[in-house]
Amino acid sequence: MSAGEEFFAGIPRIPYFPSAGPGVVLCFKQYNAEEVLMGRTMEDWLRFSVCYWHSFCGTGADPFGFQTLHRPWSEGTPMEAAKRRLIAAFEFFTKLGVKYYTFHDRDMAPEGSSLQESNRNLDEITDMALQLQNQTGVKVLWVTCNLFAHLRYMNGAATNPDCHVLAYAGAQVKKGLDIAKKLGAENFVFWGGREGFHSIHNTVVAAELKHMANFFKMAVRYKEHIGLKCQFLIEPKPKEPCKHQYDYDAMSVIGFLKHYGLESHFKLNIEPNHTTLAGHSYEHDVVMASAFGMLGSVDANTGSPDLGWDTDQFPMDIRNTTLVMKTIIEQGGLQPGGLNFDAKVRRESTDLEDLFIAHIGAMDTFARGLRNAVRIIEDGIITGMVKERYSSFSQGLGQKVEDGSATLEEMEAFIKQNGEPRVTSGKQEKYESIFNHYI
Amino acid sequence: MSAGEEFFAGIPRIPYFPSAGPGVVLCFKQYNAEEVLMGRTMEDWLRFSVCYWHSFCGTGADPFGFQTLHRPWSEGTPMEAAKRRLIAAFEFFTKLGVKYYTFHDRDMAPEGSSLQESNRNLDEITDMALQLQNQTGVKVLWVTCNLFAHLRYMNGAATNPDCHVLAYAGAQVKKGLDIAKKLGAENFVFWGGREGFHSIHNTVVAAELKHMANFFKMAVRYKEHIGLKCQFLIEPKPKEPCKHQYDYDAMSVIGFLKHYGLESHFKLNIEPNHTTLAGHSYEHDVVMASAFGMLGSVDANTGSPDLGWDTDQFPMDIRNTTLVMKTIIEQGGLQPGGLNFDAKVRRESTDLEDLFIAHIGAMDTFARGLRNAVRIIEDGIITGMVKERYSSFSQGLGQKVEDGSATLEEMEAFIKQNGEPRVTSGKQEKYESIFNHYI
Amino acid sequence: MSAGEEFFAGIPRIPYFPSAGPGVVLCFKQYNAEEVLMGRTMEDWLRFSVCYWHSFCGTGADPFGFQTLHRPWSEGTPMEAAKRRLIAAFEFFTKLGVKYYTFHDRDMAPEGSSLQESNRNLDEITDMALQLQNQTGVKVLWVTCNLFAHLRYMNGAATNPDCHVLAYAGAQVKKGLDIAKKLGAENFVFWGGREGFHSIHNTVVAAELKHMANFFKMAVRYKEHIGLKCQFLIEPKPKEPCKHQYDYDAMSVIGFLKHYGLESHFKLNIEPNHTTLAGHSYEHDVVMASAFGMLGSVDANTGSPDLGWDTDQFPMDIRNTTLVMKTIIEQGGLQPGGLNFDAKVRRESTDLEDLFIAHIGAMDTFARGLRNAVRIIEDGIITGMVKERYSSFSQGLGQKVEDGSATLEEMEAFIKQNGEPRVTSGKQEKYESIFNHYI
Amino acid sequence: MSAGEEFFAGIPRIPYFPSAGPGVVLCFKQYNAEEVLMGRTMEDWLRFSVCYWHSFCGTGADPFGFQTLHRPWSEGTPMEAAKRRLIAAFEFFTKLGVKYYTFHDRDMAPEGSSLQESNRNLDEITDMALQLQNQTGVKVLWVTCNLFAHLRYMNGAATNPDCHVLAYAGAQVKKGLDIAKKLGAENFVFWGGREGFHSIHNTVVAAELKHMANFFKMAVRYKEHIGLKCQFLIEPKPKEPCKHQYDYDAMSVIGFLKHYGLESHFKLNIEPNHTTLAGHSYEHDVVMASAFGMLGSVDANTGSPDLGWDTDQFPMDIRNTTLVMKTIIEQGGLQPGGLNFDAKVRRESTDLEDLFIAHIGAMDTFARGLRNAVRIIEDGIITGMVKERYSSFSQGLGQKVEDGSATLEEMEAFIKQNGEPRVTSGKQEKYESIFNHYI
Repeated sequence: MSAGEEFFAGIPRIPYFPSAGPGVVLCFKQYNAEEVLMGRTMEDWLRFSVCYWHSFCGTGADPFGFQTLHRPWSEGTPMEAAKRRLIAAFEFFTKLGVKYYTFHDRDMAPEGSSLQESNRNLDEITDMALQLQNQTGVKVLWVTCNLFAHLRYMNGAATNPDCHVLAYAGAQVKKGLDIAKKLGAENFVFWGGREGFHSIHNTVVAAELKHMANFFKMAVRYKEHIGLKCQFLIEPKPKEPCKHQYDYDAMSVIGFLKHYGLESHFKLNIEPNHTTLAGHSYEHDVVMASAFGMLGSVDANTGSPDLGWDTDQFPMDIRNTTLVMKTIIEQGGLQPGGLNFDAKVRRESTDLEDLFIAHIGAMDTFARGLRNAVRIIEDGIITGMVKERYSSFSQGLGQKVEDGSATLEEMEAFIKQNGEPRVTSGKQEKYESIFNHYI
Repeated sequence: MSAGEEFFAGIPRIPYFPSAGPGVVLCFKQYNAEEVLMGRTMEDWLRFSVCYWHSFCGTGADPFGFQTLHRPWSEGTPMEAAKRRLIAAFEFFTKLGVKYYTFHDRDMAPEGSSLQESNRNLDEITDMALQLQNQTGVKVLWVTCNLFAHLRYMNGAATNPDCHVLAYAGAQVKKGLDIAKKLGAENFVFWGGREGFHSIHNTVVAAELKHMANFFKMAVRYKEHIGLKCQFLIEPKPKEPCKHQYDYDAMSVIGFLKHYGLESHFKLNIEPNHTTLAGHSYEHDVVMASAFGMLGSVDANTGSPDLGWDTDQFPMDIRNTTLVMKTIIEQGGLQPGGLNFDAKVRRESTDLEDLFIAHIGAMDTFARGLRNAVRIIEDGIITGMVKERYSSFSQGLGQKVEDGSATLEEMEAFIKQNGEPRVTSGKQEKYESIFNHYI
Repeated sequence: MSAGEEFFAGIPRIPYFPSAGPGVVLCFKQYNAEEVLMGRTMEDWLRFSVCYWHSFCGTGADPFGFQTLHRPWSEGTPMEAAKRRLIAAFEFFTKLGVKYYTFHDRDMAPEGSSLQESNRNLDEITDMALQLQNQTGVKVLWVTCNLFAHLRYMNGAATNPDCHVLAYAGAQVKKGLDIAKKLGAENFVFWGGREGFHSIHNTVVAAELKHMANFFKMAVRYKEHIGLKCQFLIEPKPKEPCKHQYDYDAMSVIGFLKHYGLESHFKLNIEPNHTTLAGHSYEHDVVMASAFGMLGSVDANTGSPDLGWDTDQFPMDIRNTTLVMKTIIEQGGLQPGGLNFDAKVRRESTDLEDLFIAHIGAMDTFARGLRNAVRIIEDGIITGMVKERYSSFSQGLGQKVEDGSATLEEMEAFIKQNGEPRVTSGKQEKYESIFNHYI
Repeated sequence: MSAGEEFFAGIPRIPYFPSAGPGVVLCFKQYNAEEVLMGRTMEDWLRFSVCYWHSFCGTGADPFGFQTLHRPWSEGTPMEAAKRRLIAAFEFFTKLGVKYYTFHDRDMAPEGSSLQESNRNLDEITDMALQLQNQTGVKVLWVTCNLFAHLRYMNGAATNPDCHVLAYAGAQVKKGLDIAKKLGAENFVFWGGREGFHSIHNTVVAAELKHMANFFKMAVRYKEHIGLKCQFLIEPKPKEPCKHQYDYDAMSVIGFLKHYGLESHFKLNIEPNHTTLAGHSYEHDVVMASAFGMLGSVDANTGSPDLGWDTDQFPMDIRNTTLVMKTIIEQGGLQPGGLNFDAKVRRESTDLEDLFIAHIGAMDTFARGLRNAVRIIEDGIITGMVKERYSSFSQGLGQKVEDGSATLEEMEAFIKQNGEPRVTSGKQEKYESIFNHYI
């Protein structure tokens, strides 16, 4: 660890400077970590996390173009680069003032020529990571295993038609869980990018789903065996790289988990860019997962509604972050999950400072969303209108519907007695106008 | 019943005439009801059904245009028209040679000024329907209640924020179940067109979902109470008329049913045009529902992939019908469900004969799909390739994964011993070429 | 004209009350008509217009539901209702403080049983409209002919395969132009909702396009003949009601106009909900039309990015309105066009006041967008960054590219001398962060 | 050139074997090169071409996964690999029996460390290509320059905000045109993958469009200067890699060309996968380009309607190929353009034989489409129905509309005399049923 090396020279610890002008972008204007809102600090509500893959491993290559991002920490042999990358990352975390990070096993340490070598690489680098965590207080929000990039996973990992590949994925997850324990990760994520299909002609869906369920059960048993306390999370995505992925969206995963009796062992890590790819509105899966008690964490990013692939942009829309934060506050926070920036600077954003500007812009956008949501909830105007709207369910027949004791016969009797219901405006535009007041 | 009136004069019972030329469209060239394939008649495999709403109530109005379809059976008072419509419908069923039909309560008899009057209207018309069923042997594939068109349902039926409206829906479903029993319906469908929301601002998702679940539980109890034997079906649709509907797609409904312990009482009625609106491929929800043992019936129609609303076109793509029929054969058929043409002639198809031409074209397309699927299955070439592809799960470690007894420790040991798996081509283009051979 | 009748009793002239609280929705908090920004009043920059069809003719019916909006002005015979509707509309315009309105011929006066009767109806009602215009100072932003709702237009108007229908459309447009002149309309719009196709099988695209072009040429000649001075506008829409419409988006219309030599006679009326249906971002067609010097007017509304049909919602997103207003300011304003609210209250928004709330909310959203855009332009930070970005084109080789005199040989020589260009960050996240500062 | 080396050992010249069974995939069952249909050989109608980039340079890497396709010809230094690749390619062309190929400059020869070195590489490899062309009779359908993959083009080539980059693109195109002349290419393609934007905030659309137009003008002048006779083609694509590309779809390009007076120098190369990404149906841009006399060539591939990115799959849908071939026949063929397979084997299709299977499957799909289209046209049933549908334009008022001499006054007089037009069914389902007869 070359203690003296600085990768982001000239960039200080990012300050909170609310009155800075429009052109000043290397300070927070909204995010004030220690400020208390509704009894909790902004840091606690937001639990920001930086992701390792996009921010420290990203090259800027896309399907039509070569590398554009040439990072100073990527020099040397793979293991040398891994170490320099780690130092750069912790410099970034601490200068940005973020307390969590996330990574895939293969982001942090290079894959070797055998499982054993890969594991040794991982051991060496995570020893160093642990030391840096202890020095800085930065913690792991979650770990995940990369079960999609290597050639061997091209036809799937847990759903591969060849059990040999499934075994490889299992061996890799075993090591991932060991690492999670070692580094004190608060969550462990499964993202099934190759768990799905490209062609229905060569695929037996029912068999693959069963294999995936049994794979998850093995992971649950091993987690319990080693006494790992973290939360398991599944991250839905509808498609890309597969034509169809089984973890399509929040409801697909909930259905799957409940079908296989796995629902008490997993929650969801919702990525809004995946939600919009599934044809839903930005906040939809956050809201649905929360309604089912299954919202565990959020991959804070965005796509463009007019694009059909995962662009993993930094979230910059205040309307979206307000809706997400309102849902999070209403469920009492995200802990042990957090807001992980699964976002990458554009491949054209080639300056090192762009990495800071992007994170700061997104953190401020979420901080502003938090401030808005707090004002909405504390004012109580919208909440009051909604409460009044559903008030018929707190008494009489409504209460019986609520507690499940009503019958169709009672419904019919009620209508024969009371006739046609009153027409009540939904007042959508009024809600929208009031919401606009806060943003 | 004016026995002598004929609405489709000049159109005979549609014959099977396989060698007819391209311009001859009032005969079947593929559908031969009594022909036996894989031990069952085509009629039994396909279980075609005509829908009442599009074919006998449709006006051709669209959001930008007025009525284009002026039907001879729609004259007179609402009740007179209802009776003429019923006679026209049975003339159509029998000339077309289809044994099933489907309807909403309000298609068949007009809504009155009170629940009681609506119910009396329904009693009177269904008496007549029962008589026609007995005369012709045509049966009810399924009944459903229209809980979306009336003003009272604008904010939802089972998920309305006003319990008074929910009660009205309950009363209507009670009558619908009585009618289902009276007419010997083989299924009963719930389509929640207004069960969802337009604005998240005024909506409490968790409360609405619970109300919907309790509503379904009341229906199950009443069904059991009256000894109604039919299958309950939920029909998913992602959106339209709502911005978001809770019964989004197959997996959403499966998740909902399992969450509320309703899965043993319901199966799914899959409409491919709804599937494609949800962003899936045509056959997707048929395949997924079948994989979960939940495929109950199919609303045989199609949309255009480039359009974002429900066009309910007659299914004319042989590739699609081949994939659907292959899935149906593999699960042993659809009974007591069927293939219901939830499809409408275009509003520009104003000739009465177009109603026949459209149904015949679609029936031939499904018959051709059935013939193709049977050849694919009987030849066994694709099936054999698929079986070989998954063969590693029938022994050793694969078998332990299959039966759920494998562990991550065994996975790791296996890889330490056996190393990297072999690369195996997915052969998608080969499957596609062979599939093309059959269509 | 029953002078004493008031339709919106209890609603006063909407005041500007910038400090009103979140729950107060019957006042403007952003729109201050007389306030001057960049040398022009807000009223002049925004040129708001109310549309007749949604706001005064809308019933709330949708493809799955009946009428929900029962308006007090819709009573009586069609001609009586037309008169009451007109009085209600002018009460609305004046209370809202909007100076323009727009209408289709058939919105304002009912279609008769012959062209002659329809024309007489139109004469009678527009006489009354002219009187109300003179009394109130409210003017016509644009007129258009409804060439899509009547049965006769089901297969198209100017592109109908039957010339008899095209003739009817021509006769109707002739009258529409006469009415435009009589009422002093500042623009005349063509929206080709049925100019396209549902099935490529029965369509000759080249013939239909030529007929449409010749139809437009007739309109141009007649306009010149009667000395009508207004701007002609074409409104693009990609689909709905047709599967494909020829006026797909801004570039399609520009291509069409240039191909047929019509570009000097027409500009575009851009509706952002149509733009997003075409797969573009909200502001895209406004920006493109402006870049080609063809932006004539804007139908100010919005859709939901997750829906595939035209929802015509009131625009409530400040980000969108800021981008649109920035483009409008940069081209020097929209006159003689304007911002017409081609938007409808949701069918669930059944209170009369919802009509005011919706318009006020949207006007405030555009006013806020205008204020933001003015600050962006006046601060000059973004403008300066952009100017710097393109600075290489103001001298040397760049200037030769700019003026069209450069050659490939010079390009090669330049590279042989200067080698590889410098890598320059696009700084997207920096732009986004600065933009967020203003909204 | 190691004459003895064979890359596709064991695969013979692909024979035409129409009666082969479903499992036999290394023969043509539909494509019979010399067979004459409508006075022309199948080879002449179809003008198949193999693309170099996907089939010989593709690695199988995707945004989530590493290389899967390890080709025997990719060994050695870049220049050695380039030579082996060329030999492999010509072995493939001749065994497959395809007479054309297409390539980007950088596919064929590696980019050097300077323009001069890149040009020398290109000279050396194209010398060898010319020799192989002469030996085999295989020809170049089109050449194009890769102006998108190199880091320097990340912000665009002809639309780059830095004129230095535009100059580099110009130098590269100059060389590309020289190569086109040397190899006798029949067309030259421009695909503007980076000509567009990611963020409207940092982009001046009008300036970029003008630069692009001036860039094209330079190419036209240089082409004329060197006496190059080939057809220039622009290939539209709506997005990917950019958020928005200026060459969005056929109509966008037509509008652009006409605006800048370039329409006589360019035609379009339509790629159906790009068409569907633009929200159109598969055949749409082929039909539109042809209607405007601008269809020059087709990149024969397909996407999946449920995916939002360019999958470049081999076209396997007979319905689609029938519609495309019908349009091509109706315009008298594609020459000097052709059907270029801009398609790649799936990254999971790792066997070398998959490259043959995929091309054969697609060629048979197009051959079947050709056979279907010929039968449709020769039978004349659909054509006759269409002709009858538009017959009103061949006389009287219709003829005046057709020739542009009609007036609105005549239209009105005609309607006053003749009244309401007759309602005529569009008969969409009848057309669809008849079309199905042929496929």
